[in-house]
Order: sequence, then C-alpha cells, then structure tokens
Amino acid sequence: MDKPLEELIYRLSRLPGIGTKTARRLSYFLLDSPPEEAEQLAMAIQEAREKIRECSICHDYTDSDPCSICKSEHRDRTVICVVERPQDVQVMEATGKYNGLYHVLHGVIVPERGIVPQKLRIKELMERLKHEPIKELILATNPTKDGDMTARYITRTLADVDIHITRIAHGIPVGGDLEYYDELTVATALAHRTDYREK
Amino acid sequence: MDKPLEELIYRLSRLPGIGTKTARRLSYFLLDSPPEEAEQLAMAIQEAREKIRECSICHDYTDSDPCSICKSEHRDRTVICVVERPQDVQVMEATGKYNGLYHVLHGVIVPERGIVPQKLRIKELMERLKHEPIKELILATNPTKDGDMTARYITRTLADVDIHITRIAHGIPVGGDLEYYDELTVATALAHRTDYREK
Repeated sequence: MDKPLEELIYRLSRLPGIGTKTARRLSYFLLDSPPEEAEQLAMAIQEAREKIRECSICHDYTDSDPCSICKSEHRDRTVICVVERPQDVQVMEATGKYNGLYHVLHGVIVPERGIVPQKLRIKELMERLKHEPIKELILATNPTKDGDMTARYITRTLADVDIHITRIAHGIPVGGDLEYYDELTVATALAHRTDYREK
Repeated sequence: MDKPLEELIYRLSRLPGIGTKTARRLSYFLLDSPPEEAEQLAMAIQEAREKIRECSICHDYTDSDPCSICKSEHRDRTVICVVERPQDVQVMEATGKYNGLYHVLHGVIVPERGIVPQKLRIKELMERLKHEPIKELILATNPTKDGDMTARYITRTLADVDIHITRIAHGIPVGGDLEYYDELTVATALAHRTDYREK
C-alpha cells in the first residue's frame, strides 16, 4: 500500500474507537470524495486546535477568553458546577436546567496513574472561591470511584470555607459516565443533588 | 458551543458511520491530545488527498503512476481482475492467492441513481484489452444486483472479443452458517456445487 494512504489509515486509527478496518474505510471515503471534503476536514482540525483554548476562568474549551458563559450577564454567578471534562459542560447545558457557572477540572484524581490533585484545575477552583461571591458548589464529577474520590478531596480541602457544597444525585448509575445519558436523567440527577459535606 | 468546535464536529460527522455523538467524542479527543496529534492527522489527510491519484493504467489509488502492481515484473500480465473499488484490490492482495493485474471500475452500474457505464472506468478497460495481451478477465464485482448487472454489461460488451471471462464464485462464506444466509445465496451455492471426492 502507498505511504500517504498508510499514514492516513494509521493516523485515523489512533482516534478512540476507530480500529484499523474503520480507519481504512474512512480513508477511502476521503479519497473518493471531492477534494474540498478532505480539505475542509483537515482545516477544521487545524482551526479547532489553533483557536480553541482553555477559558482562563472556568477552564472550559473556548475560542474567546473568557468564555461566553463566564462573560454572560444572564447566569447566576453565585453557583459553580464542577465537572470533569469540557464535554460535561455541554451535557449540563443541554438539560436547560442549570443557569450557573462552571469549573472544568480536566480529569479526576487517579493516584495509581499519577493523576494527583496538582495535575487538575483544583487550585484554580480554590482561587475562584476566594474572589468570586460563590454560595453553592455543585460537584458533578462522575459517580465513579475516581469521580467520588475527587469530590471528596475538594470537599475536604474546603472544610473551613463557608460554602454550600452539593453532589449531583445518584440518578446516574454508579460506574456510569455523564456523557452517555439523556438530558432527563442528567436533569434529574441535578435536581436531586444532595448536601455533600461529611456531618 | 464555539464555532471552530462546532465546525470540527460537523466535518467529522460527515464521515460514514460517524454520528454526531461520535464526532463530538473525537473532537474533544483531538482538543485534549498534544497539538502534534491533531496536526499530524490534518497533514495526513491533506497529503493523502494531494499525493494519491488514480493509476493511469488500472485506476487503483497510487502515489506513483503507474502503480507498483502495474509496474511489477513479477505479476502475470495476461490476467486482469476487475473490482468495484480500490479497497477491493487490498482485499484481493490480502488473500495472497492472486498474482495478476487489476482494473478498478470506481463503482457499479446503478441506472436509477444515474450511474451509467460511461461514469465508470469501463471504456478504459476496453482500451486495455485492445493493447495488453490479456487471456483471462476475472469479474470480481460484488455478487449484488448492481455488481451482477455490471459484470453482465462488461461480458456483453466483450461478446465478440476472444478473452476467457470468469466470475468469482457465489456461495456460503467459509465459516458461515447456512441458517444466516438468504434463500438465493443458498440456492446459488447449491446450483454451483462442486465435486467433493478427493481425486
């Protein structure tokens, strides 16, 4: 097989969930399509990578800093919803049931894989809590072992800080992943959030 | 959602078998990865699209014209295997059982969708047969309604030409289960039954 085709198949097969067979099918699709199709895909990849950065406040992905939610005058600036990844912000927004701010951790604590709190945007969250008039912190990390550990870590760190801390309800099955549930499930989990501080 | 991210998700979702949800997952993967990852994928797409052309003889995709098979001195230049698409050449090569030349039609005849013989590389095949010392033409279009129609069209066009024309066998795939194939496939497998005693 020719080098450029082999390289394209290899590069596509590095994407998550794309095996060699799918990568090959996609590669031939791109070769069969009008040249603009491939060109526009290549450009979209480059543009996204060049223009999208982390918002300096909430650390969601954005092409304008601060992001549109952090800049908005129509959001409740006294609530922060803490999520693991940027895509979780989209999931929350899709419920239409949340009107506060966000904070994206970019991961969860996984000690055995060397992901310690310092590798996440936790210190940035603590800084925000010092300067922003936050009344409630909703911990919306996934209800998994690591997501729970991260929620507990944040709660412990804030032991002496007077902020209402809540955790999204276990409407999401334990071990599940926010991204794969419909808006209603996520909305219910949000509505049923409970106090999270240890008594 | 930001424009460059939306555009990337849209462009990825245009790929076959990639829905919006998968496109979103892939987009975030590219944003989460080191910038080189996205850059190399974008480059691979552009390089493939720029460098890969149709071989002027067999019309397979190639980055050097004529392609390595058409140029090879180790292939049987008296046999041409006619396939629908470039990826079928790879499938044939993977068997390790074929050592002749190829001709890629780039599709099959589908009158209801306006794909008439003139839109395929059929006239190019006829030209080859005038100038190359071909003894056998193996019709390896898929055993579908359209693939069969295309094979019949080529055969009729060559009615007055003295070349041995063969068609790949229909039947139950090796390892297949009778129960899972339709009546026509089973009936064809029965009609085309071969002697089974060892000689």
